[in-house]
Amino acid sequence: MVVLESAVARIVALLTDFGTSDPYLGAMKGAVLAACPEATLVDLVHEVPPHDVLAGALALDAAWPPFPPGSVFLGVVDPGVGSPRRGLALAAAGHLFVGPDNGLFTLVLRGATAARVHAVENERLFRRPVSPVFHGRDVFGPVAGRLAAGLPLEEVGPPVGDPVRLELPEPRLLGDDGWEAAVLRVDRFGNLTTCLPAAVLGEAADRPGGLRVLVGDAAAPFVRTYADVPAGGLCSLVGSSGYLEVAVREGSAADRLGAVAGTAVRVFPGKD
Amino acid sequence: MVVLESAVARIVALLTDFGTSDPYLGAMKGAVLAACPEATLVDLVHEVPPHDVLAGALALDAAWPPFPPGSVFLGVVDPGVGSPRRGLALAAAGHLFVGPDNGLFTLVLRGATAARVHAVENERLFRRPVSPVFHGRDVFGPVAGRLAAGLPLEEVGPPVGDPVRLELPEPRLLGDDGWEAAVLRVDRFGNLTTCLPAAVLGEAADRPGGLRVLVGDAAAPFVRTYADVPAGGLCSLVGSSGYLEVAVREGSAADRLGAVAGTAVRVFPGKD
Amino acid sequence: MVVLESAVARIVALLTDFGTSDPYLGAMKGAVLAACPEATLVDLVHEVPPHDVLAGALALDAAWPPFPPGSVFLGVVDPGVGSPRRGLALAAAGHLFVGPDNGLFTLVLRGATAARVHAVENERLFRRPVSPVFHGRDVFGPVAGRLAAGLPLEEVGPPVGDPVRLELPEPRLLGDDGWEAAVLRVDRFGNLTTCLPAAVLGEAADRPGGLRVLVGDAAAPFVRTYADVPAGGLCSLVGSSGYLEVAVREGSAADRLGAVAGTAVRVFPGKD
Repeated sequence: MVVLESAVARIVALLTDFGTSDPYLGAMKGAVLAACPEATLVDLVHEVPPHDVLAGALALDAAWPPFPPGSVFLGVVDPGVGSPRRGLALAAAGHLFVGPDNGLFTLVLRGATAARVHAVENERLFRRPVSPVFHGRDVFGPVAGRLAAGLPLEEVGPPVGDPVRLELPEPRLLGDDGWEAAVLRVDRFGNLTTCLPAAVLGEAADRPGGLRVLVGDAAAPFVRTYADVPAGGLCSLVGSSGYLEVAVREGSAADRLGAVAGTAVRVFPGKD
Repeated sequence: MVVLESAVARIVALLTDFGTSDPYLGAMKGAVLAACPEATLVDLVHEVPPHDVLAGALALDAAWPPFPPGSVFLGVVDPGVGSPRRGLALAAAGHLFVGPDNGLFTLVLRGATAARVHAVENERLFRRPVSPVFHGRDVFGPVAGRLAAGLPLEEVGPPVGDPVRLELPEPRLLGDDGWEAAVLRVDRFGNLTTCLPAAVLGEAADRPGGLRVLVGDAAAPFVRTYADVPAGGLCSLVGSSGYLEVAVREGSAADRLGAVAGTAVRVFPGKD
Repeated sequence: MVVLESAVARIVALLTDFGTSDPYLGAMKGAVLAACPEATLVDLVHEVPPHDVLAGALALDAAWPPFPPGSVFLGVVDPGVGSPRRGLALAAAGHLFVGPDNGLFTLVLRGATAARVHAVENERLFRRPVSPVFHGRDVFGPVAGRLAAGLPLEEVGPPVGDPVRLELPEPRLLGDDGWEAAVLRVDRFGNLTTCLPAAVLGEAADRPGGLRVLVGDAAAPFVRTYADVPAGGLCSLVGSSGYLEVAVREGSAADRLGAVAGTAVRVFPGKD
């Protein structure tokens, strides 16, 4: 895995809890462009629930992997803005990440073997004056722009050895080789992404019918893709980020099962 | 009409039913940029109702015409993802279009005199491994990026002679030279776009008062623009895509008339 | 303050009341790109309430300042489209602004000392034919694109001396050195931005506890940032655009106080 010290593609991808009805997102984009007018801005997700750092970390984790090397990810879900919480810029997995040190980068750091993490402290990079309520515009945006324009990572501030890491929901091993896993995320289609990586299930996860998946008493046949069940049929499968997912073809598993983030899903080897 | 074999402007415009709350759209953008880091990504519409291919086809039809020649349109409304449904890349009207072969390009193909349609089959272009539940990220995104970067269309796969075409709502000729037309789309303003092209109405559609337009018993005076009636006034006019539209100035015709997609609108020559 | 006659950065930032569910925004983007294929399009806000020109003016005012010099702002909240209302292109504060002459640029003009304002009349710049219901696509988009590509401002039409200016809510001086100010905007987080610029409050606004802020009977302690009160605590502070703001840390002041746009906030010097 290559760890870049500076960006090459001038891509700055944005993930926030700002929504798109307020002017904050536009202002932050302006600050990025002021630091790097040639940047290509890419909107990832701005509907992270307000202040929900874990949801932001999960969304970022599902969005960044396909990007070309050297992309800059500016993540701002920042309930502690203006408090002494640090800011971070880090190089990991061939990309750069900028935002508050509150756990937003937990999954990025977990997956990276050789991350380099720095505190954002170099005030010469900031927009002045710095509002104590909007570091996205005045601190993180300008720093992300400068990194996209080629600033070496170590220029942003000193190395940090202990970035904040969130405790993540983890699947729990049951007796008889089963797992219990929480729903992490309900998407627009009503699909339920669980915290269970298909990788821990071994070859059973490669084989339709290889797993028995239950949400409460409802069995969700394990298939390869939505189209393997009739329209309206409940199913389970390996989702696009590699986690076990429960779905209803052309319908909503969340509505069908009354499931929300946190709902338990049980998984056993063998046919259902 | 010029049919391009490859893109020149490096513009990739995106239309999906992904919404903007989930990470899928961001991931697909990353995949486009990985294939063409210099691409200019343009968000068209991502709030197509989930799995509603016809609504996607209609939205695409209203959005693409102003773009500069050689733009690439990546359309992903894909309820059949992972099934044997084909993927398509096609050159039509001077642009390139990429997405599932499920009718999403019906209107593009109807309007084009010399479209060239190819199946997306060249696996060397794909992101690996290909998730059976996310071809937007792993198949169509990379192909759209490669086309934007100049890949010749025929490199994506063999020619296709029978792309899927949806049956579209069509206006129906009544007695006494009238038409009955369905509402196709209700927009954010509550305006009702019908399936009746002004072109079929002849010169009567060029003249305020030249048509009598009825929704149920309500008469919607035919005018040139919203401002030709008082605020709150019901009216009808030729919409921005050339179809007959019913509106309330600074109000909602949908609310006023209880109209939805499918509601019938009747049109007769002569003053109302 | 530098007043530019033409754009240099090829940045075109978009603010509308189009929403993102309809194809109008995509079509307008295409028209900008047809006039300037190298433009960098930046979405600011598209959820301005339909036809609410004042809300659009306020959002624009909060979004444009961080942008690099020479950016072009295309603002379309246009209830009078197709009527004889003028179109405007203006150079102010080092940027260019394009849109209908209905007050959308009131705050830009109020802050600029040497604005140059021109009517948009040069039909050779327009997309043809011009729909009387969509000047965003056919008039303002193409003009914004041409300006981004370097067209001198005076090419768009003759100078205008009397652009429309909206009456803005202004704070009202009370007895005993207090102010009464209306809530201008409720944001996604439930924060209340008032019309009271911190600048008029003098040094008291620089000092936590320097102001006593009341919404009805509820006192909102005046602090520097949200994190200065406990989670769930009501507070007031100087918002990121320099206006007095009332907030609840990690909660909604709007919900807590039942406040909406127009709600009165009273401010007095001294501790609360």
